[in-house]
Amino acid sequence: MKLSQLENNIKNKKSFLCLGLDTDIDKIPKHLFDNSDPVFEFNKVLIDELNKKIVAVKLNTAFYESRGAEGWTSMKKTINYLNKYYPELFTIADAKRGDIGNTSKMYAKAFFENLNFDSITLSPYMGMDTVLEFMDYDEKYPIILALTSNKGAEDFQIPNNLYESVITKSMSLKRAKKIMFVVGATKSDFLKHLRNILPDNFLLLPGVGAQGGNISEVINSCTNSENKKILINVSRSIIYAGNDENFVLEAAKKVDELNNSFNFK
Amino acid sequence: MKLSQLENNIKNKKSFLCLGLDTDIDKIPKHLFDNSDPVFEFNKVLIDELNKKIVAVKLNTAFYESRGAEGWTSMKKTINYLNKYYPELFTIADAKRGDIGNTSKMYAKAFFENLNFDSITLSPYMGMDTVLEFMDYDEKYPIILALTSNKGAEDFQIPNNLYESVITKSMSLKRAKKIMFVVGATKSDFLKHLRNILPDNFLLLPGVGAQGGNISEVINSCTNSENKKILINVSRSIIYAGNDENFVLEAAKKVDELNNSFNFK
Repeated sequence: MKLSQLENNIKNKKSFLCLGLDTDIDKIPKHLFDNSDPVFEFNKVLIDELNKKIVAVKLNTAFYESRGAEGWTSMKKTINYLNKYYPELFTIADAKRGDIGNTSKMYAKAFFENLNFDSITLSPYMGMDTVLEFMDYDEKYPIILALTSNKGAEDFQIPNNLYESVITKSMSLKRAKKIMFVVGATKSDFLKHLRNILPDNFLLLPGVGAQGGNISEVINSCTNSENKKILINVSRSIIYAGNDENFVLEAAKKVDELNNSFNFK
Repeated sequence: MKLSQLENNIKNKKSFLCLGLDTDIDKIPKHLFDNSDPVFEFNKVLIDELNKKIVAVKLNTAFYESRGAEGWTSMKKTINYLNKYYPELFTIADAKRGDIGNTSKMYAKAFFENLNFDSITLSPYMGMDTVLEFMDYDEKYPIILALTSNKGAEDFQIPNNLYESVITKSMSLKRAKKIMFVVGATKSDFLKHLRNILPDNFLLLPGVGAQGGNISEVINSCTNSENKKILINVSRSIIYAGNDENFVLEAAKKVDELNNSFNFK
């Protein structure tokens, strides 16, 4: 997908919402276990109901890997379903991979070729050679961890402004405009500064909902009347809004609530 | 496995060698394609031949993920085979995972419970809360990236001594003695210093072989007559030493050569 199309979708749908499918087989409604693949069924039903109200879908790979090859198959069925029926939704493999050249080439193959996600989250600890293999795919995007939403961000990212070094080095790469960055919605003190140093890149913001980030603060800090280049990811508080046959309706209510709170102008 | 047992195995076998199974389906000998799972067959034949001459086996998850659910199955068959027939070999999932609490719990489940590896490599960019979920499994070990063997280590790990902050924070955790650290064998200027600040922890050293790290330098810097707590990983230069029916013999020759070069006292 072209980034201009993603930005248009955001403006047309009046939504920044990325649906986080952190699908935990122990938390999904019991009636879905009549299906051969209850995790895929859960995802499918949510996507069918919510696709017009969201602009992106993020699959957290850990939740699929925890179920081995079977979980990997649920992930593949979900991304295939998205690519076939809802190609207008931007897809994110939340994999946080990061390794040296010949290995990151394999990860690029796994997520950009075989699974055909639009983007993948990358952990930059090992340096820029972990990102390069992901840069040359047309209309595919690396999303680099900069300043994450968790408490542990204070351990290494904030001391010595490591997160800024990550951004600076990343932005010195060729075609750097295509790089997206993960910025925690919980990091309100930093959001305006981050948008200043990254005026034109997409930001993926996790941390509203279960983790407590403030939506209007995020939107005021990171967008303006022209620039709408953010994706706000919400996972648990949407997908587990209900826990019985009504879970899709409860999820849709939560999504409407979130979209309203964006107060889109 | 207890770490004392691993250290005994090193002393008894007179080997620090960790066999890196970065098995690329495009690089394995053609005759193996008569088998239903040529990647597993390649791994199995190598393990059967080399098990007495090595102390550990490391599977690089990227190479398996690049083949989707099928690749995940090859990985599972390989680790099951190791656990069943060669429980004395220490096993490493080279996965470089790293995420917040509820997600890292899923990764721990994937690699410590379902796949039953002895250890997993972790990327510390997101901070210490990415490590905690891996600390409480008995006889299972987190291996934290400190100073890696690649060029990109200079981007973030070396400036401001980030690698030392990672070590210091890690060593402040409860039960920190069980943590292993990845230290590149290519980083000869740093090895003695690293062993000074980590006198008693196991170090996993990649980077000899294809990446050019010097073996005797590594051994002189990181071991002494009592402390043999290192694992030297070699992947490509062993497993692709040959590329026809003789690949196992070529691999064994390379392993003998490496074990001799350790000059074990």
